[in-house]
Amino acid sequence: MPTLDASVRTALERLLDPRSVVVVGASSDPAKRGHQAIRALREAGYENPVYPVNPNAGQILGLDVCASLDQVPPGADVALIALPAAAVPGVLRECATAGIAGAVVLANGFGEIGVDGADLAAELAAAIDETGIRVIGPNTSGLLNLTSGANLVGLQGVPRGPISVITQSGNMLLSLVNDNNVLRGPGFHAYVGLGNQADVRYDECLVELARHPETGVVAVHSEGFADGRSFLVAAARTVPDTPVVLLRGGRSEEGRRAAASHTGSIAGSDAVATAVLRQAGVELVDRSDELAVVAGALAVCAPITPGRTVAILSDGGGHAALAADGLAAHGIESARLAEHTRQQLRKVLGAAAAVSGPVDVAGATDTDPMVFAEAAEILMRDPAVGLVLIIGLFGGYHLRFDAGLRDSEDATAGVLLALSAEYKVPLVIQSCYAGLDIANHDRLRAGGVPVLGSIEHAVRAAAALHRRGRLIAERARRSPLTLPPPAPPIPGSGILDEPTARRVLADTGVEVGMWTFARDVDAVAAAVAAYRRPCALKVVSAQVIHKSDVGGVRLGVVASTATENADSIVDAVTAKVPDARIDGMIVTPMADAGVELLVGATRDPIFGPVLAFGSGGVLVEAVRDVAFRAVPLTESEAHEMIEETIASRMLDGYRHLPAVDRDGLARFLVRIGDFVAAHPEIAELDLNPVIASGHDLTLVDVRIVLSKSASGGRDE
Amino acid sequence: MPTLDASVRTALERLLDPRSVVVVGASSDPAKRGHQAIRALREAGYENPVYPVNPNAGQILGLDVCASLDQVPPGADVALIALPAAAVPGVLRECATAGIAGAVVLANGFGEIGVDGADLAAELAAAIDETGIRVIGPNTSGLLNLTSGANLVGLQGVPRGPISVITQSGNMLLSLVNDNNVLRGPGFHAYVGLGNQADVRYDECLVELARHPETGVVAVHSEGFADGRSFLVAAARTVPDTPVVLLRGGRSEEGRRAAASHTGSIAGSDAVATAVLRQAGVELVDRSDELAVVAGALAVCAPITPGRTVAILSDGGGHAALAADGLAAHGIESARLAEHTRQQLRKVLGAAAAVSGPVDVAGATDTDPMVFAEAAEILMRDPAVGLVLIIGLFGGYHLRFDAGLRDSEDATAGVLLALSAEYKVPLVIQSCYAGLDIANHDRLRAGGVPVLGSIEHAVRAAAALHRRGRLIAERARRSPLTLPPPAPPIPGSGILDEPTARRVLADTGVEVGMWTFARDVDAVAAAVAAYRRPCALKVVSAQVIHKSDVGGVRLGVVASTATENADSIVDAVTAKVPDARIDGMIVTPMADAGVELLVGATRDPIFGPVLAFGSGGVLVEAVRDVAFRAVPLTESEAHEMIEETIASRMLDGYRHLPAVDRDGLARFLVRIGDFVAAHPEIAELDLNPVIASGHDLTLVDVRIVLSKSASGGRDE
Repeated sequence: MPTLDASVRTALERLLDPRSVVVVGASSDPAKRGHQAIRALREAGYENPVYPVNPNAGQILGLDVCASLDQVPPGADVALIALPAAAVPGVLRECATAGIAGAVVLANGFGEIGVDGADLAAELAAAIDETGIRVIGPNTSGLLNLTSGANLVGLQGVPRGPISVITQSGNMLLSLVNDNNVLRGPGFHAYVGLGNQADVRYDECLVELARHPETGVVAVHSEGFADGRSFLVAAARTVPDTPVVLLRGGRSEEGRRAAASHTGSIAGSDAVATAVLRQAGVELVDRSDELAVVAGALAVCAPITPGRTVAILSDGGGHAALAADGLAAHGIESARLAEHTRQQLRKVLGAAAAVSGPVDVAGATDTDPMVFAEAAEILMRDPAVGLVLIIGLFGGYHLRFDAGLRDSEDATAGVLLALSAEYKVPLVIQSCYAGLDIANHDRLRAGGVPVLGSIEHAVRAAAALHRRGRLIAERARRSPLTLPPPAPPIPGSGILDEPTARRVLADTGVEVGMWTFARDVDAVAAAVAAYRRPCALKVVSAQVIHKSDVGGVRLGVVASTATENADSIVDAVTAKVPDARIDGMIVTPMADAGVELLVGATRDPIFGPVLAFGSGGVLVEAVRDVAFRAVPLTESEAHEMIEETIASRMLDGYRHLPAVDRDGLARFLVRIGDFVAAHPEIAELDLNPVIASGHDLTLVDVRIVLSKSASGGRDE
Repeated sequence: MPTLDASVRTALERLLDPRSVVVVGASSDPAKRGHQAIRALREAGYENPVYPVNPNAGQILGLDVCASLDQVPPGADVALIALPAAAVPGVLRECATAGIAGAVVLANGFGEIGVDGADLAAELAAAIDETGIRVIGPNTSGLLNLTSGANLVGLQGVPRGPISVITQSGNMLLSLVNDNNVLRGPGFHAYVGLGNQADVRYDECLVELARHPETGVVAVHSEGFADGRSFLVAAARTVPDTPVVLLRGGRSEEGRRAAASHTGSIAGSDAVATAVLRQAGVELVDRSDELAVVAGALAVCAPITPGRTVAILSDGGGHAALAADGLAAHGIESARLAEHTRQQLRKVLGAAAAVSGPVDVAGATDTDPMVFAEAAEILMRDPAVGLVLIIGLFGGYHLRFDAGLRDSEDATAGVLLALSAEYKVPLVIQSCYAGLDIANHDRLRAGGVPVLGSIEHAVRAAAALHRRGRLIAERARRSPLTLPPPAPPIPGSGILDEPTARRVLADTGVEVGMWTFARDVDAVAAAVAAYRRPCALKVVSAQVIHKSDVGGVRLGVVASTATENADSIVDAVTAKVPDARIDGMIVTPMADAGVELLVGATRDPIFGPVLAFGSGGVLVEAVRDVAFRAVPLTESEAHEMIEETIASRMLDGYRHLPAVDRDGLARFLVRIGDFVAAHPEIAELDLNPVIASGHDLTLVDVRIVLSKSASGGRDE
């Protein structure tokens, strides 16, 4: 037997790109997975050693079978374990003893089936923990490396290309492969089915697959991340070089239930996940039928140069309008063409053409498709144009109008490719003939131009390329999303009393405005007098949570009414909450009229600490106007966050209110984000409302909840 | 020559289903439309008379050419006019003289090119007006009737089936035909390209095509309706029998520009259009690539029985979760299965299957696809299940697992069809193999089961069938959307002063609450005293629009401060608007604490009078929470309208406010709707805010604007 190459590669590298495969549970029965796996490796042209293991020994498909794992030459890269769940933990220990780097565990019946599988899941975890062997699965369809031929899925006929796939569902691989084939997409480099993520996680695979030279894009389908924060960090680091496209399953309540019984994934908030994954630069797709479209486009197409945008070039006004609508729905304004460009287009396309919005050739190409190339070149020369989106019938003129146009279309395809390369302006083409076998379409695809049948798919691809251009340009202004080392923890646990909460915030350099903690009625009166302005009084008592509800708040209190108001607070609170211990009152000058905002933070069970910003005050619950970001966030991200909200529409002088200093507000959000990031013991933070008026931010209420753990360590 | 059949058919019927065709501008040049049209009719097997017209006479494709229209036997059904724009008005008159019922005008260069085409468009309108000839176009690709073979488009190979199409874009027909072919959809009965809608409108074609026995669904693409209200009425009347699916182009600003240069269509508000078209029962699609999907499904599939919903039956948990997410995104909860159903499924599918949410067979069908039929039958017996949505790989098992499964899959397809018929529960199937040539899929399709490749398409089809079931059940509770005969017009024009506006409203039976118009300060004081409650005072002056801004409003005024407050209003208004003539003040008792709502009405340029409802008060502009309905609306529609808004979340006792009487609010909306419907002279009505508290609706401000036309007739 040959000596195996236990090289300097990491265990994960060896697992994902194995140079030797052990099949545990090998079988001579063609209906069994342990047989199919060996056959699949052979059919995929896998040229490295394959070691079948089965106690009955003998031969399978011409290979000598090892009766046990200790007969396998030590140091193999991967073991494919095709055995029932109960056998897996023991076999993993044997694999580790045999020096095998990693295992793919196909069996289901672990955490995903609920209580019944919990014990086995724990045993599996223990075996992984003790041996250090890397495990993909359980409950997976396997893995596939088309470059090496390591086909541990048993799926034949997957076209080779730049897309690397990570999913939790074997069927999603089938969908993607079929979609790619229907779309005539660019094909695949690798596939990893993570199943229940007992060990190997999304973030690890992402980094490993993204750095492989064959990978042009990583397409991910996930029902939940075992460690969401690590995924964010990995994605943020990866996306400037390799695009990452993500489809999430189990976003709705019903879908979550399906996902839970599928892979046992935990659910977090969908709104939080959407926000933080986008923040990390992940291209999110909402439809399963767009994952292959977007991944395919990002794999082959250059992004749109920032500051430029999409020009529509169509051979029908109806289609042009739909494409423009589609771009608008993605928030993309189509290119404002220069006057010179319009004139040139008019010259080439004639009087009937539309050249001021989306370009409609209006028949000018019917007898000469090469006019498309002329118009495309004029558009590419316009500095506003970053991508030419050809919409309509291109490539099918020889079918629609005249078979004699075939050569002209082929030649046009060649010229379009040359122009795109010359001007460095990518092309995306939609043609209602894209589903047919058309040579000029295939030529364009081979040259890196997506040719798609659906206007919405073409627009979706363009939108991804648009976002990607901005992402790359803004990389220096994006948060790496790594959490800083924890600061010395805030003492205590549970809800901090408000004076403490305000002091803690102030200590970290957050401007909390003027406030006084008055321990008795006289001190209240003195504080109000000192401020020389109408003040708000608010009771401080550990027993009182909803202060307004029990008469614990008075607004617009002036010096002459201070004592009376403070007394009445004491009376009201004592009457409603007889066991309340009143520690005193917070006195703050009344804020100027302003916009009521909410600034908050929570710990998402998947992604860790996140900041929330939106409309505050009484309408919070009804309007649900809130944007999220993972912390720490950058000022640029804070600005984006603000702009996502309805509250943003009230910041520039809404209905006689003073305009709010957006930069100051953004800096405030960054500071709160840094504070929360450095204090993992903070379970919740609520500043609601924050009244924003000009440069002032008045914190009307400050609420900080520490996690119960006395250590102040990371909770959950 | 044969005698032509100028039967009792209407001109429009003859135009859309012609029994004789005149081709004006016939040509012997195969590159010309006037040649292609004749060839196309021949190739389509059109057996009725075709009369080419060309001054050069002679023969074209074996037909004798008439040198002029007066040589054509009188009373032909349709003239296809393949001549330049300038010739069209004259030719139309000649056609009319020849007794031709209608014409299809292909030429562009009319209203859609802007000013340059305006004169010609006017000439065309005059010719139509004077002769009464019905005209389709101009700027159209023509029309197509696959049942009669009247192919006036020149497009070959369109499969015959139940879909009738009305568009403003010839390319949309190509897209639809190609999409239908890629989807292996049910095919087409007729197509009408309306172009600029100089005469024949959407509503007329809708009624005409919908009543044809070959039509199973009408698929519409539109960039604007010449008479939107007529379309609403036609749709509302049509949809209970024949579903109508609509894709709109030019919804975004950029898209509108494209549409304007394409068909010269006018733009209205997209939000209004969406609301009123949905109210009329039209199935709206947002994506061009879903028009064929939804039309195809509605054409062949029974709707979901109201009260029942969709059960997902999947062979992969990942796909199941995505399908459930998709349904949730359409607001559809998947079926809650009965305990008995779950037990039965468990028995058939085994321990690994998920049976409590979306059903995941988890491998139980891998070796025996017939298990799908067993599971489907169990689901169909559950009274919660109105449609079984099969998701995953069905039909491709023989490709994925074992070629020997082909027969079993074919047999399963037959059983599924029989079950669907027996239980009257429709089926929709998604299979990632749907794009391939698979016999069992085609068998299912032929039996009325959509088999689609995309999860989102399958879910979209299910959503349409779900909505259609409800629509049919609720038909008695839907407004016919016809406008009543106008009531005697409200005298005056422009903005009514508020006392007048309140009186007008009160006269129509709308409860406007207690109010007094006090003409001087003493009268104000008397009114406040009489109410014995804090009141609001508001100046009445034609010169003052924004009353609060000039100090024209005082709140919480009691008897002792009434005179002082009234005086100060006079002073403030006089100071800020020196030329204001103060007519008096409106005195109203202060409303109880309540939810601030907006009730308004406008006249949409396309669809006529519409009611608006949403959040009122200071947040209106920022939150933009508003729902629309065409008037008159029903109480059931008013309830739906309320439920669409954010305001709705505040009606059931939000933050200590009293719960609002939703029925009373709905009745109020109906009454306002009736009022606006009966008064075409009302250009705008604004009740903002209306404070809703328990059973009370307090109209804080009543604003009615009449159109300028002194006649009080319909404006615009």
